[in-house]
Amino acid sequence: MELRAILFDTFGTVVDWRSSLIADLGAFGARRGIAADWAALADAWRGAYHPSMDRVRRGEAPWTVLDDLHLQSLERLVVAQGIAGLTPDDLAAMNDLWHRLRPWPDSVPGLTRLKRRFIIGPLSNGNTTLLVDMAKNAGLPWDVIMASDVFGHYKPDPETYLGACRLLRAAPGQVMLCAAHNADLLAARALGLKTAFVPRPTEYGPSQVRDFAPAEAWDFIVTGIDDLASQLDC
Amino acid sequence: MELRAILFDTFGTVVDWRSSLIADLGAFGARRGIAADWAALADAWRGAYHPSMDRVRRGEAPWTVLDDLHLQSLERLVVAQGIAGLTPDDLAAMNDLWHRLRPWPDSVPGLTRLKRRFIIGPLSNGNTTLLVDMAKNAGLPWDVIMASDVFGHYKPDPETYLGACRLLRAAPGQVMLCAAHNADLLAARALGLKTAFVPRPTEYGPSQVRDFAPAEAWDFIVTGIDDLASQLDC
Repeated sequence: MELRAILFDTFGTVVDWRSSLIADLGAFGARRGIAADWAALADAWRGAYHPSMDRVRRGEAPWTVLDDLHLQSLERLVVAQGIAGLTPDDLAAMNDLWHRLRPWPDSVPGLTRLKRRFIIGPLSNGNTTLLVDMAKNAGLPWDVIMASDVFGHYKPDPETYLGACRLLRAAPGQVMLCAAHNADLLAARALGLKTAFVPRPTEYGPSQVRDFAPAEAWDFIVTGIDDLASQLDC
Repeated sequence: MELRAILFDTFGTVVDWRSSLIADLGAFGARRGIAADWAALADAWRGAYHPSMDRVRRGEAPWTVLDDLHLQSLERLVVAQGIAGLTPDDLAAMNDLWHRLRPWPDSVPGLTRLKRRFIIGPLSNGNTTLLVDMAKNAGLPWDVIMASDVFGHYKPDPETYLGACRLLRAAPGQVMLCAAHNADLLAARALGLKTAFVPRPTEYGPSQVRDFAPAEAWDFIVTGIDDLASQLDC
């Protein structure tokens, strides 16, 4: 079956959330005259990501878009980390930094090459506006945005992978997921999608404990999105 | 309220379906050695568009994407017009011409300018793949694809206009619909969206009977999508 579309996990796979957040939170704090351990906040914020979505996935919370989960986590974390003096507008501005994460150096060149032959898009737990703003800021040349709020589900719920295939009018075997996370690829492959693993060994900084290497014999194992384009002769 | 996104009706507003279909059906017929009145087929095909969607909208047919409605209409029309010798592959190739409609001359320049300040996307009865293929072929620089199969509804069902606002996390008054069809704008305005009318007086060729001029005091009345960009200081 001919490959028609390549979808990308986004946070960590296409954009470097940790370096972006630490730099932008630091700059924000400097402008506002607020000192804090911004790296610790960034790591704790990302640490709250899966637990917050899992509460929605298990039905313990109603459907809530990622922007709102991020804000709920932030409100709790600034208290827990003793970061004082932040107004609601400050918290909203900090939350908006997720819309302006910067891509890994290979992302835009690789996507630009892949776009010539394939339909490309994120398949992300981000909401549509987060992903659209990110694409406009970072120059990600997506053809289509497969966002969690289109499906009302978070990965790894099957409704996300299969919902994307339905909108692409493609069999799962005609769609490939590229991700830096073995667990995401495992869920995609179980539903019949093709898989590509790209290691991002600095994604979590010094606290990274997994996903340094492929855990399975994925269809493609690449060093970057530009390498995926090369391996697909784009 | 600040305008955040501009959505566009597509068939007729952004792309010139009639000239594209007549030219491409004619070229197809010449390659296949099949003579027919291709303009008559194009007009009858487009004539079947609203009735076919209305059957879905009234619940007389299950949800069916536009590509499949187009194919059903085409199968009936080639018989009715006595066009013989077409195989199922021929019909599929003819149906795929809707994915390669060409833009009006002002569309790409205008969209490119508007994209700098606003989120832009189609809000179309086309399905996702039809709109993605069209964008890739025609160079339409969409940020997001608001397709009927995302919502499971056809315009003017409110689920389309309001579904787009929900995904954009915007109040209806922060979203504008640009269309060449007064009826589409009337439905959008009734739900609170802003409106822009662009006349396309040759859309239906010699048989055009309506939409030569704005029927209401829309928020913007423009001569083309480039003029909309100018009126919005883009």
